[in-house]
Amino acid sequence: MLIVPEREIADLMTREAAFDAVEKVFAAMAAGDAYNFPVVREAIGHEDALYGFKGGFDQAGLTLGLKAGGYWPNNLERRGLINHQSTVFLFDPDTGKAKAMVGGNLLTALRTAAASSVSIKHLARKDAKVIGMIGAGHQATFQLRAALEQRSFEKVIGWNYHPEILPNIEKVANEAGVAFEAVELPGMLEADVIISITSAFAPSLMAGHVSPGTHVACMGTDTKGKQEVESAILAKASVFTDEVAQSISIGEAQHAVAEGLIAESDVAQLGAVINGTNSGRTSDDQITVFDGTGVGLQDLAVAASVVDLAVQKGIAIEVDF
Amino acid sequence: MLIVPEREIADLMTREAAFDAVEKVFAAMAAGDAYNFPVVREAIGHEDALYGFKGGFDQAGLTLGLKAGGYWPNNLERRGLINHQSTVFLFDPDTGKAKAMVGGNLLTALRTAAASSVSIKHLARKDAKVIGMIGAGHQATFQLRAALEQRSFEKVIGWNYHPEILPNIEKVANEAGVAFEAVELPGMLEADVIISITSAFAPSLMAGHVSPGTHVACMGTDTKGKQEVESAILAKASVFTDEVAQSISIGEAQHAVAEGLIAESDVAQLGAVINGTNSGRTSDDQITVFDGTGVGLQDLAVAASVVDLAVQKGIAIEVDF
Repeated sequence: MLIVPEREIADLMTREAAFDAVEKVFAAMAAGDAYNFPVVREAIGHEDALYGFKGGFDQAGLTLGLKAGGYWPNNLERRGLINHQSTVFLFDPDTGKAKAMVGGNLLTALRTAAASSVSIKHLARKDAKVIGMIGAGHQATFQLRAALEQRSFEKVIGWNYHPEILPNIEKVANEAGVAFEAVELPGMLEADVIISITSAFAPSLMAGHVSPGTHVACMGTDTKGKQEVESAILAKASVFTDEVAQSISIGEAQHAVAEGLIAESDVAQLGAVINGTNSGRTSDDQITVFDGTGVGLQDLAVAASVVDLAVQKGIAIEVDF
Repeated sequence: MLIVPEREIADLMTREAAFDAVEKVFAAMAAGDAYNFPVVREAIGHEDALYGFKGGFDQAGLTLGLKAGGYWPNNLERRGLINHQSTVFLFDPDTGKAKAMVGGNLLTALRTAAASSVSIKHLARKDAKVIGMIGAGHQATFQLRAALEQRSFEKVIGWNYHPEILPNIEKVANEAGVAFEAVELPGMLEADVIISITSAFAPSLMAGHVSPGTHVACMGTDTKGKQEVESAILAKASVFTDEVAQSISIGEAQHAVAEGLIAESDVAQLGAVINGTNSGRTSDDQITVFDGTGVGLQDLAVAASVVDLAVQKGIAIEVDF
């Protein structure tokens, strides 16, 4: 039994390793080699916490297990702990024995950033220069840092409901040597790639804010009722996702589907583009949307990757379990 | 983070501690203080394995977490490992942080034995003398050992589809200084308590094999289609269970309900008897049935108990996670 504590993840895990793990597992999902289990999500009636399990099995990567944890809204204020708490448990698919336990907090941020980054690699125009950020919170910094590696971006433009936190992402842009500009929402017309990463329950980005040829990665909607972008954007875009069932029920596509603007069959797996069974972007003025809902297999993939790295570097704690 | 490996459980856990933990959590469930999450159970398409998660939260005992694992049918033959493999993970309900990891194999056997034992304490006649066993496999030895402690039993009678394994339970009876006799099914008429613990898909124990006043604990049925006792027994008995929803869908009561012999409202929680809100057995010729389906909260309860014992004895492995 191998243990990789949360505190080791930052030094071990790279954006490249997270990218590779997520790209591979999206491909395995689309090829039918990997699938996610039903998600358990419970409001436990204690500390206002949401707790649950996201499991899955990747027969290609032989990764089996779950992420357990959730959202404890009082952690930061009352205890100085982060509010999202999660742990990944990996099992040996040949025997059912517990194999590894890995801190899941930073991994969750990295795998979410990797997902929009994988979507940019496979769906954004090759000549994309301007990246637009809707949202500038903690997770936005991860999304932007990973996204900037996918194209030769020259400028970041950003909008946030509370503009005073825009310096969070300005700092990331500057570290990458890229100019930053705060904009109003219509300013997003300049963007070639837009990433939305908010917890909003009403759309900010409207169809009139998106130019032809843009790739839009919607990364914040993972619950019924949440919405980041106007459903008319999905209606005129080619829509891709990590998992179709989640996309149309709890993801950004839930609204366009509910309104009858698109059908389930209009939503394709990003993995199919990676595998070459879906042609993805076919023109320079096509709008592409990636609806990133977040699946357990992403967590398992990055956790398996970090366990390998920890073993290589002699950092994994071995317990005779 | 505390770790209690499988190999330590046998020396740490007692039948008394398992009994107390299960009795307490059944009571908490009936009082509305504890609930089980939806069960995830997946045929993963690898090694013919069944894998899944049984989680729950006990607000009274502040126990949160899950048992993960399942059934790997080739383990014994191919690898010399037991086929049922499980691990219990406990979380701090105040913060969502992983708190303990405990080997779940022996604990599962002990908590299942404790459940029928708790049912005997609360539902069998005080003057019960003869205990009848339907099934004599590995788990049957656990059920019998725990059951024998609940009344002044003088005799064990046993039946198994393959009679050659009856010595398994004869040995347990003899160790407890109690006589053993192999019987045909009609011989069960002599029993005051009957425990069925098989994986059968057709009933063995028929209504004509059960005398008035008997307590029957059905412990083997945990899946749609399995059945140990004729549904007519439930029709004329007072029926109790760990969790009503499981009892009528995947437990022994599924058949009596499907056949219209009893209704969901005829199945009561054993915890209500423990709490005194259900009067349980009210006469000496009443037949009582306990439908033990097995719930995640039982696993969490015994795991929490064994972690306490491991800490007291300085055996828990502490990992800075």
